[in-house]
Amino acid sequence: VSDVSDLSELQSEIRAFADLRDWQQFHTPKNLAMAITGEAGELAAEFQWLTADESMALTPEQHEAVRLEIADVAIYLLRLADVLGVDVEHAVRDKLAINERRFLAT
Amino acid sequence: VSDVSDLSELQSEIRAFADLRDWQQFHTPKNLAMAITGEAGELAAEFQWLTADESMALTPEQHEAVRLEIADVAIYLLRLADVLGVDVEHAVRDKLAINERRFLAT
Amino acid sequence: VSDVSDLSELQSEIRAFADLRDWQQFHTPKNLAMAITGEAGELAAEFQWLTADESMALTPEQHEAVRLEIADVAIYLLRLADVLGVDVEHAVRDKLAINERRFLAT
Amino acid sequence: VSDVSDLSELQSEIRAFADLRDWQQFHTPKNLAMAITGEAGELAAEFQWLTADESMALTPEQHEAVRLEIADVAIYLLRLADVLGVDVEHAVRDKLAINERRFLAT
Repeated sequence: VSDVSDLSELQSEIRAFADLRDWQQFHTPKNLAMAITGEAGELAAEFQWLTADESMALTPEQHEAVRLEIADVAIYLLRLADVLGVDVEHAVRDKLAINERRFLAT
Repeated sequence: VSDVSDLSELQSEIRAFADLRDWQQFHTPKNLAMAITGEAGELAAEFQWLTADESMALTPEQHEAVRLEIADVAIYLLRLADVLGVDVEHAVRDKLAINERRFLAT
Repeated sequence: VSDVSDLSELQSEIRAFADLRDWQQFHTPKNLAMAITGEAGELAAEFQWLTADESMALTPEQHEAVRLEIADVAIYLLRLADVLGVDVEHAVRDKLAINERRFLAT
Repeated sequence: VSDVSDLSELQSEIRAFADLRDWQQFHTPKNLAMAITGEAGELAAEFQWLTADESMALTPEQHEAVRLEIADVAIYLLRLADVLGVDVEHAVRDKLAINERRFLAT
């Protein structure tokens, strides 16, 4: 039984992909944050002219395009977290707890 | 040994958070894609006036702010994947394989 | 001498372009705001792997690509303002005045 | 009769605002493109949970918030164009002509 999380494994694969191409030099936190907005914009573009109903009933082609755009955002997000030493799972749980307290307070 | 992945567990927690507040109605794929661009913009805003070097040497306060913005993007990205039935881990591996072939071809 | 501003003229041309193609139905404020994030993401993508210095010394090809991405953001921004009846020039002046007061106060 | 366009005048005012605060050093094209994605994300955030119909019938408070977010995107877009020596009006007309040819061709 491995104690390496799924996310850590994915991060290792993404890091290896970048290392092999000598891309560490480009992967500053600033550049990666910028790449995330670019990919998030492409993901949004898949939905921009769809109605809410259409977005809930994607064609197989639309679904596959969206699936790969989700992957692109995830790749740069995991890469940024890796470069900064952020544990995404831990960060998500902390943020959910903060949101929880915020909603209780209002 | 559980066969439930870390990501599926996180998605369950995020789903429970949304269900408890009756937010499913707002969580159309279109709206979630839009929320991702909003959060990606907030993440970018943390870095926009920093130099590349400054982005690699964040203060503890900056690092914590970035960590929670990474969490916000991750929360909506995992929620979108959940709503669309997309396996993020699988999608990331598929996208890395596509990128691999693309680079071999050039 | 015309009392129609440059921006109003541009908005008329963009509106005519959309009307001719029967695109008013797609041009809800929500969809246009989403399109702006998509185009802003494409603009960011032009710069994401450049250093600060490289971004200040674009090649002619890079400059032309950026010029057309600036146009894309401007087209959707002017269209959104048109649909909502927002006077962009007036809004910019109001926002600069607000920023001015904000900086004086700190 | 002035031959200075509305947009050039706005750009002068925005430039003066930045110069007074010694912000030219931060206003590299890369940083400004990043700031545009941040502001576009804030604009999107105003609409993300609204239905299409709600986005067409904003309350006065929502309309004012959107108006000032439109101004923020416009300010950084005009500033980027200024720094790069891009004539936004000309760029928009060129892009509309390109789009026109593209649609005729299909």
